[in-house]
Amino acid sequence: MSLAGLRDRVVVLVAFQVLCPQSVACGIPQAQRIFETFAPSDVAVIGLHASFEHHDAFSPSVLKAFIHEYRLKFPIALDEPNAAGPIPHTMERYKMRGTPSLVLIDRLGLVRKHAFGPCDDLRIGAEIGALTQETARSAKLARVSAA
Amino acid sequence: MSLAGLRDRVVVLVAFQVLCPQSVACGIPQAQRIFETFAPSDVAVIGLHASFEHHDAFSPSVLKAFIHEYRLKFPIALDEPNAAGPIPHTMERYKMRGTPSLVLIDRLGLVRKHAFGPCDDLRIGAEIGALTQETARSAKLARVSAA
Amino acid sequence: MSLAGLRDRVVVLVAFQVLCPQSVACGIPQAQRIFETFAPSDVAVIGLHASFEHHDAFSPSVLKAFIHEYRLKFPIALDEPNAAGPIPHTMERYKMRGTPSLVLIDRLGLVRKHAFGPCDDLRIGAEIGALTQETARSAKLARVSAA
Amino acid sequence: MSLAGLRDRVVVLVAFQVLCPQSVACGIPQAQRIFETFAPSDVAVIGLHASFEHHDAFSPSVLKAFIHEYRLKFPIALDEPNAAGPIPHTMERYKMRGTPSLVLIDRLGLVRKHAFGPCDDLRIGAEIGALTQETARSAKLARVSAA
Repeated sequence: MSLAGLRDRVVVLVAFQVLCPQSVACGIPQAQRIFETFAPSDVAVIGLHASFEHHDAFSPSVLKAFIHEYRLKFPIALDEPNAAGPIPHTMERYKMRGTPSLVLIDRLGLVRKHAFGPCDDLRIGAEIGALTQETARSAKLARVSAA
Repeated sequence: MSLAGLRDRVVVLVAFQVLCPQSVACGIPQAQRIFETFAPSDVAVIGLHASFEHHDAFSPSVLKAFIHEYRLKFPIALDEPNAAGPIPHTMERYKMRGTPSLVLIDRLGLVRKHAFGPCDDLRIGAEIGALTQETARSAKLARVSAA
Repeated sequence: MSLAGLRDRVVVLVAFQVLCPQSVACGIPQAQRIFETFAPSDVAVIGLHASFEHHDAFSPSVLKAFIHEYRLKFPIALDEPNAAGPIPHTMERYKMRGTPSLVLIDRLGLVRKHAFGPCDDLRIGAEIGALTQETARSAKLARVSAA
Repeated sequence: MSLAGLRDRVVVLVAFQVLCPQSVACGIPQAQRIFETFAPSDVAVIGLHASFEHHDAFSPSVLKAFIHEYRLKFPIALDEPNAAGPIPHTMERYKMRGTPSLVLIDRLGLVRKHAFGPCDDLRIGAEIGALTQETARSAKLARVSAA
């Protein structure tokens, strides 16, 4: 799965683990609410299963059963193991500290927010709502003014 | 209190009653969270106490004690009684159906959303976040395209 | 209202104020749940409105409107003002420190528990459930062994 | 693991699955709260992992990781598969319909309650609290009067 095909949409990347209590209680339900709240043409929600521990307990069939039981509708990718260390590739690339993590990527493909741990619905809604209003041009301006 | 002085900001108007269970459990805490989440230069939260019933139970000192006990920080207005009927003036003007009600007004002073009853934090956050991104020009365009 | 007529039942006395946030969010809904969970022949729930502050804001019509709006079904008494100090009579008699407070009284009329602030449903359920099993004889024995 | 060694205590048997949303959100946290609320000399909480589906996803290492992540302190047994059908042995013996399920067993070893799905804390607290008050003699009487 590649994020390149999502260009022009706001991307919400939610890293989780099926055996992480905060992922199950907060991160996953929030990802599902985001998926149900925004138009898919504006916002893409992508789950990322980040198995950086409990390797012996995890198998793709565990994730498959979890997705079935929790009725998750958004696409979910398995993070690739990393030969260079314990943190899988995508988590490392996006500098995630653990699970649950949430990364917001704007319509031009640039990371605009990193969050680790539970996120407030009102604030995350506001940030996604603001990003959806950006055109390619205003996204550039927003980053210039933030820099 | 007049909304004219708030022009250029997004205004969140929250109508409530101190003896309305849904106002106390949902409307008031959400108004407080909105007040704490957005920059005051972008978003003004205004409470409106709408005493359309229990007139004998209500007095300004009840509202004052309520504001003190719930530690509300945003400004709160008392809706004016209406000689022409039971619905007070401001509630009638904004076509509110009861409490709690939430009205979103854009930077140009036009009503963009009415909601009656509990509101989802993620959705209301998204709507306020999107409105904060509008300039005077884009607010006009948004309304033209919605019409 | 007198507790003497409730002898032979376990009595749950819940002191609250209509303008106290913890009373409204926790104490009152828990009293209502206790009322709905136990048989009235075993457990009597009594509300006690304890107006030890905001005297100018409070009137019996405020309490009446509150009871109506929150659809409270258990009997509620107004605590008597106390000429000797700010704490009303019944609160003082039962040594309540504020609102919400919960007092458990056994079938023989003796106080078995005082709690100030929010109470855990599981624990309070267990304590009431245990008291309902006491006969007059076992209640005496329980107090002797606790002394 | 056998329940015979728990005779003289009230036993709370909680059947769950690590991939069952209601077990994770309600059944497991309630079992943990029961374990923390009652004295171990009065009440024994026993978890029962009931893997009647998703067999390919489940392995003892999944359960071990789950117990570690959720910091569960009460003993947990793995239900034995049943050659005669899909319902494992202990679930079948106690006539459980699915997960989460809760079974209350009195001090004499007799089942006093079956519940399937989420349980109210106040009610379950009351029932356990009442059972803890029973002596061997009163437990017999209670069952005779219920029959």
